[in-house]
Amino acid sequence: MNDLTIALRRDTGKHLYEQIYLHMKQEIREGKLLQGERLPSVRFLAEFLQVSRSTVELAYGQLVSEGYIEARPYRGHFVCQAEELFDLGKEENIQEAWRGKEAQGKREFAYDFSPNTIDMSAFPYATWKKITKNILVDANSDIFIPGSPKGDYSLRETIAHYLHNSRGVNCLPEQIIIGAGNDYLLMLLEKILGRHVKIAMENPTYRRAYRIFDSFAYRISPIAMDGSGMSAEGLYESGADVAYVMPSHQYPTGIVMPIGRRLELLKWAGEKQGRYLIEDDYDSEFRFKGKPVPSLQSSDRAGKVIYMGTFSKSIAPAIRMGYMVLPLPLLQVYEENCSFYSNTVSRIDQRILNEFIGKGHFERHLNRMRKIYREKHDLLLNGLKGMEKRFMISGENAGLHILLQDKTGTEERELTKAAADAGVRVYGLSEFCVGEIAPLWKADTVILGYASLGKEQIAEGLRRLWDAWGSLPHRRQ
Amino acid sequence: MNDLTIALRRDTGKHLYEQIYLHMKQEIREGKLLQGERLPSVRFLAEFLQVSRSTVELAYGQLVSEGYIEARPYRGHFVCQAEELFDLGKEENIQEAWRGKEAQGKREFAYDFSPNTIDMSAFPYATWKKITKNILVDANSDIFIPGSPKGDYSLRETIAHYLHNSRGVNCLPEQIIIGAGNDYLLMLLEKILGRHVKIAMENPTYRRAYRIFDSFAYRISPIAMDGSGMSAEGLYESGADVAYVMPSHQYPTGIVMPIGRRLELLKWAGEKQGRYLIEDDYDSEFRFKGKPVPSLQSSDRAGKVIYMGTFSKSIAPAIRMGYMVLPLPLLQVYEENCSFYSNTVSRIDQRILNEFIGKGHFERHLNRMRKIYREKHDLLLNGLKGMEKRFMISGENAGLHILLQDKTGTEERELTKAAADAGVRVYGLSEFCVGEIAPLWKADTVILGYASLGKEQIAEGLRRLWDAWGSLPHRRQ
Repeated sequence: MNDLTIALRRDTGKHLYEQIYLHMKQEIREGKLLQGERLPSVRFLAEFLQVSRSTVELAYGQLVSEGYIEARPYRGHFVCQAEELFDLGKEENIQEAWRGKEAQGKREFAYDFSPNTIDMSAFPYATWKKITKNILVDANSDIFIPGSPKGDYSLRETIAHYLHNSRGVNCLPEQIIIGAGNDYLLMLLEKILGRHVKIAMENPTYRRAYRIFDSFAYRISPIAMDGSGMSAEGLYESGADVAYVMPSHQYPTGIVMPIGRRLELLKWAGEKQGRYLIEDDYDSEFRFKGKPVPSLQSSDRAGKVIYMGTFSKSIAPAIRMGYMVLPLPLLQVYEENCSFYSNTVSRIDQRILNEFIGKGHFERHLNRMRKIYREKHDLLLNGLKGMEKRFMISGENAGLHILLQDKTGTEERELTKAAADAGVRVYGLSEFCVGEIAPLWKADTVILGYASLGKEQIAEGLRRLWDAWGSLPHRRQ
Repeated sequence: MNDLTIALRRDTGKHLYEQIYLHMKQEIREGKLLQGERLPSVRFLAEFLQVSRSTVELAYGQLVSEGYIEARPYRGHFVCQAEELFDLGKEENIQEAWRGKEAQGKREFAYDFSPNTIDMSAFPYATWKKITKNILVDANSDIFIPGSPKGDYSLRETIAHYLHNSRGVNCLPEQIIIGAGNDYLLMLLEKILGRHVKIAMENPTYRRAYRIFDSFAYRISPIAMDGSGMSAEGLYESGADVAYVMPSHQYPTGIVMPIGRRLELLKWAGEKQGRYLIEDDYDSEFRFKGKPVPSLQSSDRAGKVIYMGTFSKSIAPAIRMGYMVLPLPLLQVYEENCSFYSNTVSRIDQRILNEFIGKGHFERHLNRMRKIYREKHDLLLNGLKGMEKRFMISGENAGLHILLQDKTGTEERELTKAAADAGVRVYGLSEFCVGEIAPLWKADTVILGYASLGKEQIAEGLRRLWDAWGSLPHRRQ
C-alpha cells in the first residue's frame, strides 16, 4: 500500500468512515491499490488515522459489501480483481448534447383549429377536488395496496352500467380492463391478439393508432372509406384478421357507419375464427343531432367486437384512463396469458372516477360540455355560411371538428399554407391518410376542430381564413 | 308495410319519437320490415299515430343516421339492405359462466411471510392528502392537459437529483421516462430494444419480469447465480444481447454483486454494439448495514445500463409509478421511434410525487420505514436464533425478506407444506427459479418476507414454524 494519507475532515457533514471508504474506493478504481494487495489491518489504520476501530470496520465492511475488497479469515482484507474501468468522460460529452433539448419549442399559431383538443375551462375542478379529498379522508390504506390487474371491480361495474345505458354495450364488469390510456391498452391488446396480425384500418384514419400498430410490426392494410365507412369488399380482399374501425363517428371523416355496413363487418368477423373488430368509440359522447348512435358492440352476438373507450375526450386527457371491453374468447386468452400484467392506473384515481360517475357528476359534466360544444359548433357553422359556395361541409352532426372540401379544386396544401400565413392553423386531410389517399378523399379537404378555442377566437379565425382563402384562385368552376 | 300499430305510451319517461324509433328498428331487425320497403310518409304516420310531424321526423332521422333506412329525394324513406342478424343469445349464455368469477377467493393464511408486500401502516397519509389538496387548489387547468410523453420535466429533474444523491446514478432528466409501473416500462422497453432479443436472467430471479419477457417472445437464457451474482462466463456462453440483473440486492437471493463482477458485466456489454444491461434497482432504499451500495449505472461509462426503479416498494404499489433511465444510444432510438406513446401517469399524481420528494417528505418517510423494517427484521432474526442449527440464514443485510436453507436435507416442499398445515405461508425458492434449478440453489431453501406483518404476527408465525419444522425428520446430519 503506497499511501495511507487520507485527509480526513471533521468539519464536513460526512462521516469519517464514509471519507475513508470513498478514499479507498477511489484508489482502487484509479488502480493505485492493485488487485490482490493487502490492506492495512483495522487496528493499524485506526491508530494511524486516529479514529476508532469501528470507524475503519464500517469503511471496510462497505467496501466488502460492494465487492471492492474481500476479507480472508485470519489474513486480513485484500483488493479484489476488477476489470479495467471504462474510459471516463465519454458518456458525459454526449450527454452535453442532449441537455435542455426538450426546451426547444414549435411554431405557435394564434388560431389553432386542432381537431385533437378539448375545452377544459368548464371542468368541474371543485367537484373533482372535493371527491379527491373525501376519498383520501375516508380511505383506509386499501387504496394504496395493489388492486386487480383489470382495475377495481367497483369502477368496472360503474363503467359497465354507463356503457350499457349510453352506448348499448352488452358486457359484464369481468370483461372490462381499465388502463392508463388507449396507447397502453393497444399494447396490452397486442399481447392478447398475438404478434402476427394483419390489421385493416380505415383510410383516412387516426394516425396515432396507425403508428402504434406499425410499431407492433402488424401488417397494416389501409382500406379506402366510402360514404358508409370501411368498404366490406376491401376488407375481404385485404386478407386481414382484425379491423380497426370508428363506426359511430369516424376520425377524421365524421362518417357514421350505417347498420347495414355494420352487419356486413360483423358477418365478416363471424366467418372465421380469430377475426375481430376493434371498435374505437373515442368521442361518442358528443353528438349534436338526434340520439347517440349505438355502439357496434351492441349489435355483436358472436363475441367479435373489442370495444375501446376513453375519458380523455370527456373528462381530461391528463387523467390517463381508458378501458377496453373484451369479447369472451379474448377474455379467456387474457386470463390465461396476460392477467399477470399489473394494472396501470392509480387506485386513488380509479376511486375518484368511480365516485365522479356514480354520483352523477359525469353526466352533468357531459350535458354541460354538450351545450358548450354545441354553441361553438353552431358558431363555426354559421361563420362558414359565406363559404358554402367554395366548400362542401361534412361531419357536422357530431364530434369536435368538421371537414371542408374545396369545390373549386384548390389543393389542401394551398389552403393550409394560406391559413398559416394568416396565423391560422388548419389541418389537411392527407395528414390522416395512410398509404395512398383514398379516391373519395382527395387532397382538397381541410379539417377544423374547435373544442379548445374561445368563441371570439373562432370568429376571428374564420375571418382570417375567409380573407386568406378568398384571394386564392379558383382552379375549377 | 304490414303493421303500423305502434303502442305509444305517454306515461313513461320515453320520448314519443324514441318509441317510434325503437319500434321500427325492432321491426327491421326482426325482418318484419323488409329491405327496399318504403316507409309511410312522415305526414301519414304523424296523422295515423296522432303525433306531430317533427316527432316522426326525429325518429326517421335517427334511423337514417344509424343506417337502418335511407331517404331518397322526392320518394320518401326506404329500408336499407342489412345482413342477417346473428343468432341471439349465444354470447349471453357464455357470459353467464363468467359472471362473478372474480369473487372466488384463494386460500388465506393467518401468517403470510410474503416477500412481495410492504407495510403501509406508517404511510404519511395526512401529508399526501395535504399535498394533493394544495395541488388541486393551486392548479390551473394545465395539469389536466396532456404532458410530455416522458413525464413532467420537473418530476424528472427531481428524480434525477434523487437518483444522483442516493444511488450515484449519472443522468439528465432527458434520459428519464416515467411510466405506470415497471410492467409497462418493460413493454415500452421492448419497443425500444426491438422484438428479437435474447435476454439473460439470473436464476433464480424475479418471476414477474420472466413472465413479461416470455410474453414478448424474447429468447430467455436463465444463468445460474454464483455467490457474486450472474456468472460472467455463463453470460458469454449464452449468446445473449441483453442481461437483466438486480446488482444491489438480487431478488430473491439477496446477493449484492461485488464491483469486480459488475465491471465484468459492463465489459461484456461494452464489447459489442447492441448489448445492454437492465439494472432493476427495485428495493435499494432498504439496507440495514452500512451505506447503500451504489447502482451499477454509476459505474457505467459507455452508455450500456438501462436503470429501472419504482416507487412501489418505497411509497405504495397502488400509486403505479416507476421510471427508467435510458443510456444515450437508446434515448436516441426512443426519440426516433417510440416517443409518440403517450405517458401513462396522471399529471396530478406526477405533481403530487414531485412535491412529496422535493419537499423532503420522501426522505423522512424512507427514514421512518427503515427504522420500522429494521425492527421487524431484527425481531425475525432473533426469533430464528433457535433454528440456526437447522438453517443457514442469508440475504439478511438488506431488503424485506431473508432466506433459510435447510442444512439437514429436508426438501423445500416438505417445509412449505408443514408450514401451511400450521397456517403459515412461506415461499419455496424454486418458485423463483426458471428452467433448471441452479446448483447452488437447491430445492431446500425457503423465503420469509416480513414487511407487512406486525411484530406479534412475526413472533407467532415463527413459533408455529418452529413447532411444525421441529417435528420434520432430519434427512442428513
